[in-house]
Amino acid sequence: MTKQELIAKIRKKKSFLCIGLDSDISKIPKHLLKHEDPVFEFNKQIIDATQDIAVAYKPNTAFYESRGVEGWKSLEKTIQYLNNLPESVFTIADAKRGDIGNTSTQYAKAFFEKLNFDAVTIAPYMGSDSVLPFLQFKGKWAILLALTSNSGASDFQFITDEERKNSLFESVIQKSKNWGTNENMMYVVGATKSEMLEKIREYIPNHFLLVPGIGAQGGNLEEVAKYGMNKEIGILVNSSREIIFASKEKDFAEKARAEALRLQIQMEKLIK
Amino acid sequence: MTKQELIAKIRKKKSFLCIGLDSDISKIPKHLLKHEDPVFEFNKQIIDATQDIAVAYKPNTAFYESRGVEGWKSLEKTIQYLNNLPESVFTIADAKRGDIGNTSTQYAKAFFEKLNFDAVTIAPYMGSDSVLPFLQFKGKWAILLALTSNSGASDFQFITDEERKNSLFESVIQKSKNWGTNENMMYVVGATKSEMLEKIREYIPNHFLLVPGIGAQGGNLEEVAKYGMNKEIGILVNSSREIIFASKEKDFAEKARAEALRLQIQMEKLIK
Repeated sequence: MTKQELIAKIRKKKSFLCIGLDSDISKIPKHLLKHEDPVFEFNKQIIDATQDIAVAYKPNTAFYESRGVEGWKSLEKTIQYLNNLPESVFTIADAKRGDIGNTSTQYAKAFFEKLNFDAVTIAPYMGSDSVLPFLQFKGKWAILLALTSNSGASDFQFITDEERKNSLFESVIQKSKNWGTNENMMYVVGATKSEMLEKIREYIPNHFLLVPGIGAQGGNLEEVAKYGMNKEIGILVNSSREIIFASKEKDFAEKARAEALRLQIQMEKLIK
Repeated sequence: MTKQELIAKIRKKKSFLCIGLDSDISKIPKHLLKHEDPVFEFNKQIIDATQDIAVAYKPNTAFYESRGVEGWKSLEKTIQYLNNLPESVFTIADAKRGDIGNTSTQYAKAFFEKLNFDAVTIAPYMGSDSVLPFLQFKGKWAILLALTSNSGASDFQFITDEERKNSLFESVIQKSKNWGTNENMMYVVGATKSEMLEKIREYIPNHFLLVPGIGAQGGNLEEVAKYGMNKEIGILVNSSREIIFASKEKDFAEKARAEALRLQIQMEKLIK
């Protein structure tokens, strides 16, 4: 999906909501366990209930890999389902991969060709040759971790770069922004660090930001929009657990929709 | 596998060789493609031909994921085969994972429980809570990226930490070394940076180091041993492509053994 297509979808749906499919089989409603593939069934019902108000879906690969081959089958079915919706959505494999060049190429093939995601999240530690292979796929996106929403983010991401006199996450953004363009790269910036968004926007005014950490992790949507939005909207805000596990009963999809709608209504106001 | 068991194996086999199973289906001998699972058949024959001289095997998950469900099946069969050898070997999932706590727990389950690897490689960028979940599994190991062997390593790993007055990779080692112990943590240090090993040994004299980059990437085994070895040996040196793709003909396993043996003979001298 191109940047312009993504922006058009956001404007049409009045929503920059990304739903994280962190579909932990131990947390899905018990009545689904009778299905042949309970996790896919769960995802399908969540997607059906929210596809008109979410612009993006982000399966988190860890929750699929932990179930081995069966989990990988659920992931394949989920992305196939997402890619065949009546109206296309932006799909992100939240995989946080990254390795030396020839290996990153294999990861890119895994997520862009085999599974046909639009985007994959990437850890920046190994540098340019670990990221560049992901940028060789037309219409696909590399979403680089810059500033994450977790507590451990402070261990390394705020280390001061003596030469540049800024934090490591800023060096990551500044160095990497020219590896691709704002048409094939985005950055992860946690909602729990919204005060940093203003500064980040100075470095990358036109890149999309993928913002996790709203809700459970304490991030504030209004703050994120205030500092992170640009004239093309420029943000995708993710919510996972608060939506998909809003209820663990038979009404889970309905409750997921209600929670997604609650966020979409806020987003609609912020887009205006 | 415990540290003492690993050391005993190294001393018995007179080898600290790890073989990287970067088993790219497009590079394996063509005659194997008639098998139901060509990649597993390839791995099996490589393992059979080298198990008496290698102490560790390291499948690189990217080369399996790029084949989707089929690739994940090959990975499952490979680790099962490794775990059922007459003499046990140390097994590493070269996965370079790492995410917020609840997600890292799922990755740890994927590699330690579902697949039953001894160790998994981890990217440090997200900090302590992305690593700690891997340290909760008895007898299992987290192998953290410190200084990688690729060219992109210089983009961020050598950024000078203004406070500590050292490079980022050194801060990673210094901060993380107390998250676990030398009984459940190792570090990746590329052979192409062997001049850094002396300094690294000051910070972590007793941790095992996993050293990639010998051969194709230009690392020198004698240099690595000189600066990296400690009184418990303390290093696992990985070779992937030079061994497994030593020949692309029917003699591939035999040629892989010859290349592994060439390294083992050097290692035997260095252990003395």
